[in-house]
Amino acid sequence: MRTSIATVSLSGSLTEKLDAAARAGFDGVEIFENDLLASPLTPEEIRARCADLGLTVDLFQPMRDIEAVPEDAFARNLRRARHKFELMRRLGAGTVLVCSSVSPLAVDDDALAAEQLSRLADLARDCGVRVAYEALAWGRHVSTYDHAWRIVESAGHPALGTCLDSFHILSRSSDPKDLEGIADIPGEKIFFLQLADAPLLAMDVLQWSRHYRCFPGQGGFDVAGLLRHVLATGYDGPLSLEVFNDVFRQAEAGPTAVDARRSLLVLQETVGRAPLPAPVVPTGVAFAELVTPDAEPLTALLGALGFTRTARHRGKPVALWEQGDARILVNTGPVVRRDGTRLAAIGLESPDPAAAAQRAEALLAPVLPRRRAPGDAPLDAVAAPDGTELFFCATGRPGLPDWRADFEDTDREPAPAGIRRIDHVALTQPWHHFDEAVLFHRGVLGLHGKESVDLADPYGLLRSRAVTNADGSVRIALTVGAAPTDDTVHAQHIALATDDVIASARRFRDAGGALLPVPANYYDDLAARFELPDGELETYRDLGILYDRDAHGVFLHCYTRTVGRVFFELVQRDDGYRGYGAANAPVRLAAQHAVRALTGG
Amino acid sequence: MRTSIATVSLSGSLTEKLDAAARAGFDGVEIFENDLLASPLTPEEIRARCADLGLTVDLFQPMRDIEAVPEDAFARNLRRARHKFELMRRLGAGTVLVCSSVSPLAVDDDALAAEQLSRLADLARDCGVRVAYEALAWGRHVSTYDHAWRIVESAGHPALGTCLDSFHILSRSSDPKDLEGIADIPGEKIFFLQLADAPLLAMDVLQWSRHYRCFPGQGGFDVAGLLRHVLATGYDGPLSLEVFNDVFRQAEAGPTAVDARRSLLVLQETVGRAPLPAPVVPTGVAFAELVTPDAEPLTALLGALGFTRTARHRGKPVALWEQGDARILVNTGPVVRRDGTRLAAIGLESPDPAAAAQRAEALLAPVLPRRRAPGDAPLDAVAAPDGTELFFCATGRPGLPDWRADFEDTDREPAPAGIRRIDHVALTQPWHHFDEAVLFHRGVLGLHGKESVDLADPYGLLRSRAVTNADGSVRIALTVGAAPTDDTVHAQHIALATDDVIASARRFRDAGGALLPVPANYYDDLAARFELPDGELETYRDLGILYDRDAHGVFLHCYTRTVGRVFFELVQRDDGYRGYGAANAPVRLAAQHAVRALTGG
Repeated sequence: MRTSIATVSLSGSLTEKLDAAARAGFDGVEIFENDLLASPLTPEEIRARCADLGLTVDLFQPMRDIEAVPEDAFARNLRRARHKFELMRRLGAGTVLVCSSVSPLAVDDDALAAEQLSRLADLARDCGVRVAYEALAWGRHVSTYDHAWRIVESAGHPALGTCLDSFHILSRSSDPKDLEGIADIPGEKIFFLQLADAPLLAMDVLQWSRHYRCFPGQGGFDVAGLLRHVLATGYDGPLSLEVFNDVFRQAEAGPTAVDARRSLLVLQETVGRAPLPAPVVPTGVAFAELVTPDAEPLTALLGALGFTRTARHRGKPVALWEQGDARILVNTGPVVRRDGTRLAAIGLESPDPAAAAQRAEALLAPVLPRRRAPGDAPLDAVAAPDGTELFFCATGRPGLPDWRADFEDTDREPAPAGIRRIDHVALTQPWHHFDEAVLFHRGVLGLHGKESVDLADPYGLLRSRAVTNADGSVRIALTVGAAPTDDTVHAQHIALATDDVIASARRFRDAGGALLPVPANYYDDLAARFELPDGELETYRDLGILYDRDAHGVFLHCYTRTVGRVFFELVQRDDGYRGYGAANAPVRLAAQHAVRALTGG
Repeated sequence: MRTSIATVSLSGSLTEKLDAAARAGFDGVEIFENDLLASPLTPEEIRARCADLGLTVDLFQPMRDIEAVPEDAFARNLRRARHKFELMRRLGAGTVLVCSSVSPLAVDDDALAAEQLSRLADLARDCGVRVAYEALAWGRHVSTYDHAWRIVESAGHPALGTCLDSFHILSRSSDPKDLEGIADIPGEKIFFLQLADAPLLAMDVLQWSRHYRCFPGQGGFDVAGLLRHVLATGYDGPLSLEVFNDVFRQAEAGPTAVDARRSLLVLQETVGRAPLPAPVVPTGVAFAELVTPDAEPLTALLGALGFTRTARHRGKPVALWEQGDARILVNTGPVVRRDGTRLAAIGLESPDPAAAAQRAEALLAPVLPRRRAPGDAPLDAVAAPDGTELFFCATGRPGLPDWRADFEDTDREPAPAGIRRIDHVALTQPWHHFDEAVLFHRGVLGLHGKESVDLADPYGLLRSRAVTNADGSVRIALTVGAAPTDDTVHAQHIALATDDVIASARRFRDAGGALLPVPANYYDDLAARFELPDGELETYRDLGILYDRDAHGVFLHCYTRTVGRVFFELVQRDDGYRGYGAANAPVRLAAQHAVRALTGG
């Protein structure tokens, strides 16, 4: 199916928007009138630019407050329309969007609306264009798609059809029954289809629409359900995204356009119209890779955590540290800032690495070179939206390229010290691309998105959302700061699973490791809230262990100090416990700020 | 009256919050439990810190989900309460806030609620504290203040009273009648009063409360009306601010605390409880002062606009440029960055400059030295929240210090060239302090706040709100960028009023001035929307004049290029026209971006 995007969905000048849409692979665009008005290009130049970029101009939008008005007002509207139809001719736009009126002049008279829209369509036909009439959810007299269709139907004009917009329809009702009326519309009378999702907010629908729309799959609407109904009519026009979103308005147009098209690909797959390679859900975390300009602090930290340096890369300054099934690569290769220790890559165990990479590529993930150096095992890898490299791994599986083969064992054997595996990794996301990150991990990796939670940092609210596979063996917590500037403040971390967090924390401390100190007030509160076994609370207090409980189990966790942007967490998770200790996040974040204030870091 | 603020209203660590509250002059604080839990200070240390800062601990908050639960659950709640009352003793907090339950365990049984709250109050009394019971707007069974009061009344316990919260009351009803029940509560049974305002949003009340509260006078609630009712009961406890706001969470605590206390001072004045010096509303703009590292570009610009350099400062490198009643000072004194041309000060004609400054000082505006140098006229001036210096002027009025007296005339006479006066100045505000700026200009200067409008910049939505005096002779447009980082991108500007914008623009261009080019598409749209007299449109197109119309009149305006952060606007305003050409802002902003892209500025 052809895909299109409204220029209002993207940030920047009109030419930036067109370039971004084309680069992301869209077939066409809706030209939002204000973008055209503000552009120094003439309509002919815009048309030529689109043609050069391989974009069709699928829609010109919007025309407002046209129908069901007194005759003198309608005469003025026709005059305005004549100008706009002439503009569309110059622009090469064949269809115009007419929104149901919100004008105080409009009367509740379907016959008049049909008659005037018919006259508008006469004029449109004479100018070689056609009119797509859409019900705004807040239209004065026409606010539902079936009402708009009844008017279009009664007008019975070949140049007049309807436009369906998922936001206007789904914001008014989430009842699947209310979509059944779509079947009454002949596909050829649906002149256009605009798609947008939105988070489920209880708020004024106009504000909701103008500021909070998002791309399909990023909100709570059943956009796929609606699309199925529309496709069943035989509609064969473009799937077009029209998203008003305050954050996207500020974000770089390029990544937003990629995010947008990825959302349409996933949506098409959901309704059986995109032959994408099937998702290959990862089955575990093979490794996490840290890059650092100075291995010393990490070496000390990993040693104290009980990790052993078991192998080194044959061709690069990369060491493998192991404990149980937890594997950390420490890479001193890439040039980074002195404070630049960071989590650069994650290895994901994949049932079929090549297929996983093919799906990622089909969903517009940048593919990384399979072989970094001659002699390296060829590895499939892509970049996530935040730049983290995701390797699709087949650790120790015969017949498949193995990253481990690039490593030469040291003479040291792993000495198990309580840590079993990586419980989760937490990645701070660029502020403008949080929704994109969640959709990427769901669509590309086939992970499930969990609930979004607010975390109160002393200096602003953070938002966090985890994506996981079904058995919880892959968990990634995506977090975004309070403001666009905050991404350097909040660290990434690796949470290590242990069956006995007390023992692991003690061993770490005894080996010289410094645990994040937790205020005594926190433990007084624990004592108030829970009746813990004798001595337990004192042990937690001594080690800085935090405690959380949900309906299914207990979660115990503590934190190391931060190196560069990275810290470690030790977690002991009851099987049933579903969360990540969000209730304790304010205390942890405040403690980390306090340490930073002390150390000036 | 005593004033207090909840620590949750301010950003930072607990000690930062306390310091900021004390510096702003609050008498006490509400300690928000999470702030205490995250603090490394013991309750005793917090108590001592507050004492050192002259702050009382007026409230500890909140305790949740206490009442109307099965006996075993209530026993656990009492156990929890005992811990918290002990904590309050250590903290020196005499009152605890208990919010009406949202627990699924709670039953709809007022008698049980009263009985359990009474038992809680027994325990409180034994611990030397008292309980203030408050209805959350989203409480499970108790969600109105009168319902909470009925329960408190029927409990009849001396250590149990009610807490009134303006958000929880006014978010449920804006009907003044619904406040009349407050009169039924004896003042001594109102144990606490929490005040917050909020913008009038149609949204889920919990989200509204958690993210969008603001200080009284910054939203749409009649907080003063509520306060009058409460004071009429004889309530003599503190007025305390409890504001959950995503922006304040990120902002510097110091300015937020000042903003908070200013809002309470204005509120107290509104209800006749703060003997502030009366507002002295400015009657005109005496001058606008630009500072620049290089006078040359501004000299060329002002010359082309028809200004004449009529005087120079006797002691400083400041030139006065005049035309009609428009006066611009060009100051090359202060060291600034090379691109740092900016609007540094505004002179406001004041009926009583000394009284105006006294009010400003009483409302916590930083007072600037009256005399900058020996020999200078003593001038009353304060700093606005964005750092702009506001001079209260008495230009040419005998018996009052006159800024003009510091200037020595050049031999040049003003040569009137169409510009009559400064129509408005537009100031970009720091992102985190937009609400503060509006309240400052209203409270301190006695200006009226107009409606807030969104302006679509190509790279994000801006928000703008004008403040004016009654006759429109003082108009200041306050604008805030799309994100915290954007304040350097968006310029300040001075709009100059002319009776004939076409003539003024022509004269400017003929004198070598460069007007902001406006896209041809904009004029095609004007032609579609309005039937303008013959030739008019061509003239606008030729000069880059923008056109707007409201129910009361027409607004014509055009723009100069930008120097540093400053540009000028020429405006021709029909008397009745109320706005600032917001409809044209997207075109203007895009054109300015286009120029910047061309010039690399």
